[in-house]
Amino acid sequence: MNKQQLFENIKKKQSFLCVGLDTDIKKIPEHLLKEEDPIFAFNKAIIDATQDLCIAYKPNLAFYESMGVKGWIAFEKTVNYIKQNYPDQFIIADAKRGDIGNTSAMYARTFFEELDIDSVTVAPYMGEDSVTPFLTYKGKWVILLALTSNKGSHDFQLTMDVDGERLFEKVLRKSQQWANDENMMYVVGATQGRMFEDIRKVVPNHFLLVPGVGAQGGSLEEVCKYGMTKECGLIVNSSRGIIYVDKTENFAAASRKAAQEVQAQMAEQLKAIL
Amino acid sequence: MNKQQLFENIKKKQSFLCVGLDTDIKKIPEHLLKEEDPIFAFNKAIIDATQDLCIAYKPNLAFYESMGVKGWIAFEKTVNYIKQNYPDQFIIADAKRGDIGNTSAMYARTFFEELDIDSVTVAPYMGEDSVTPFLTYKGKWVILLALTSNKGSHDFQLTMDVDGERLFEKVLRKSQQWANDENMMYVVGATQGRMFEDIRKVVPNHFLLVPGVGAQGGSLEEVCKYGMTKECGLIVNSSRGIIYVDKTENFAAASRKAAQEVQAQMAEQLKAIL
Repeated sequence: MNKQQLFENIKKKQSFLCVGLDTDIKKIPEHLLKEEDPIFAFNKAIIDATQDLCIAYKPNLAFYESMGVKGWIAFEKTVNYIKQNYPDQFIIADAKRGDIGNTSAMYARTFFEELDIDSVTVAPYMGEDSVTPFLTYKGKWVILLALTSNKGSHDFQLTMDVDGERLFEKVLRKSQQWANDENMMYVVGATQGRMFEDIRKVVPNHFLLVPGVGAQGGSLEEVCKYGMTKECGLIVNSSRGIIYVDKTENFAAASRKAAQEVQAQMAEQLKAIL
Repeated sequence: MNKQQLFENIKKKQSFLCVGLDTDIKKIPEHLLKEEDPIFAFNKAIIDATQDLCIAYKPNLAFYESMGVKGWIAFEKTVNYIKQNYPDQFIIADAKRGDIGNTSAMYARTFFEELDIDSVTVAPYMGEDSVTPFLTYKGKWVILLALTSNKGSHDFQLTMDVDGERLFEKVLRKSQQWANDENMMYVVGATQGRMFEDIRKVVPNHFLLVPGVGAQGGSLEEVCKYGMTKECGLIVNSSRGIIYVDKTENFAAASRKAAQEVQAQMAEQLKAIL
């Protein structure tokens, strides 16, 4: 999927919502545990209930890996289900991978070749040759960590170098030598508020994947105020705030309602540019 | 396994070699492809042929994930095989994970609880709360990326801050507030040569996991000269240089020979401290 198609989907759905599929066997409704594959059954219900309200799904690999082989089966089934039934959805493998070249190439093969997923989140610490193997697949995206939503983002990402550049800014600037706004996005946490202004100084046109609204406390309004571009430029993720709002047999309808509320707020914000 | 036990194993085997199990279906001997699980068959043969010459095995998750469900099965079988047959081996899940707290906790559950692996490599970019969930398991280790072996290590890891501290030094220093030399090690690439001197100024007693000898061109002698402590303090990994030296039916014997050569060099280096 290219940038223009993504923007078209945003306009059509009046939404830039990504639903995070952080599916934890310990948190899903109890009645699903008697299903053959409870994780997939949960995801399928959530996807069917929210697909017209969002433009992306983000399975978080940690949650699937924690289930071992069963988890991988559920992950693959989820990806295939989205691709077959809702092919306009942008799929993000939230994996935060990154390793020496030949190893990153193997991760890229997994996500882009074997699973044909649109994008994967990548950690920048190991530099250029840990990221570029992910950039060799046409139509696929790297979503590079820049300024994350957690408290620990202050430990290293804000460190200022001798030239007055902070680490996250250096990541944004340097990585533009490897890629452009048609094959790279950046993770910027919704909790970072006004820092979106500084981000936009370095990457005025790139899409940003924004986790951290909802459970983590970020504000959608603030993110839009400081981070939105003429082509939206934002994919805002919500995981726990949508998928775990209800633990009864009505969980999917409840998730839909939660997604509708976010989508309505997003439609309001989109008025500024549409 | 604690630090003292690791050192005892090093003394007993006169080796601080870790064999990296970067097992790629495209690189293993062809005759193995008719086995039910070629990846596990290859690993089993390599492990049986090298176990008395090394103190650790490091399966690289990327290579298993690229095979999807089959890869995970091979990974789990490999870990269980080592644990059952060679329980004195230190197992490293080379995964380079790291995410917000609840997600890192899921990765920790996978590697430490489900698979009972000794250690996992972790990327520091997201800071304290992305690392600490891995530190809640008694007897388990975090191996944090500090100064990696690849060219891209220069992109961000060497960036000097306004106080004259380079990023990898900040990672070493700050992370000591979260852990100590009984539950944390650091990845330092063998290609970094004299930089081991600078590393030892900040972490004089920690074990270092050192990839990059062999295929990547690092020198064992130099690593030992600048990085070895009184308790060795080094686990030196070789992957391609040991597991892919021969593609015939004799591959395991050839790998053993390659491991023997490295072990002999290590025994020589250990004379300095034993």
